[in-house]
Amino acid sequence: MRHSELAHLNPNCSLALALDEVGEWWTLLIIREAFLGTVRFEDFRSRLGIARNVLTVRLDKLVERTILERRMSAGHRGRSDYVLTPKGADLLTSLAALMQWSDRWIAPERGAPVVFVDAKTSNPLAELVLRTRAGKRCWPSDVAFQAGPGATPRTRARFQALRKPQ
Amino acid sequence: MRHSELAHLNPNCSLALALDEVGEWWTLLIIREAFLGTVRFEDFRSRLGIARNVLTVRLDKLVERTILERRMSAGHRGRSDYVLTPKGADLLTSLAALMQWSDRWIAPERGAPVVFVDAKTSNPLAELVLRTRAGKRCWPSDVAFQAGPGATPRTRARFQALRKPQ
Repeated sequence: MRHSELAHLNPNCSLALALDEVGEWWTLLIIREAFLGTVRFEDFRSRLGIARNVLTVRLDKLVERTILERRMSAGHRGRSDYVLTPKGADLLTSLAALMQWSDRWIAPERGAPVVFVDAKTSNPLAELVLRTRAGKRCWPSDVAFQAGPGATPRTRARFQALRKPQ
Repeated sequence: MRHSELAHLNPNCSLALALDEVGEWWTLLIIREAFLGTVRFEDFRSRLGIARNVLTVRLDKLVERTILERRMSAGHRGRSDYVLTPKGADLLTSLAALMQWSDRWIAPERGAPVVFVDAKTSNPLAELVLRTRAGKRCWPSDVAFQAGPGATPRTRARFQALRKPQ
């Protein structure tokens, strides 16, 4: 089963929609490269060690989904650069969440290979934590799920039947 | 190229490590189901609409990677349940980040199908935002990357050569 079909299974699932839209693991690494300032096809290719044809398909898909946009390269007639759109840049929070999880659980003894900092002050960013709107920290066991404003009747019925997971 | 090879390309990348460990898009949907309280093989299968053999491979992999653990089912001799470990439960922040991004950009007019709430008070959780440790909000354009304590010489060299992305 291909992930492009995830949202067909349940089009009322934000996570399936997000996974379909981001598309492939490769995609997140491409987006990370874009955050690091990479704009040229050749630089994406050499820094990611990705095959030219795979990269072409992924970049085209990311442009189509308005996560990246093509820009004429200044001073290089005919060459396109790839830069993050606001929608693409907003994936930084998701990337940070996954990287922080990795640094906590997969290779914590090494310390984080890369840290996010405030560009102006070089102050490190805080770990992302779930909080209520009032600011109370919520551990995973404190969190429950409810049908939201965009829930279909089917989703709503499922959530009404749900008890909070232990 | 399979994503199981991502970390071979750059073992000093938290994101590649996280993507290898989580393994597949399907995996995140399985983890979301576990958060919703699903524990039985048959319930994962029917709720995700996933093929039995695919689900078996994914669950085994998640157990091997200590994201889920098998528990004897109370009152059902011989049946195993699958429950999140602390490492697995800690993925909730990453799931929330992706779902919130989806709700902001992919189908915002519908509103969120599912909202996260504090189980005790039903207060909705806040959107995850990147902040410095001092609490200052950072937009993507405010964020830079630096080599961290776990950076290899190669990673360190790359970051020294980097300018902040525009």
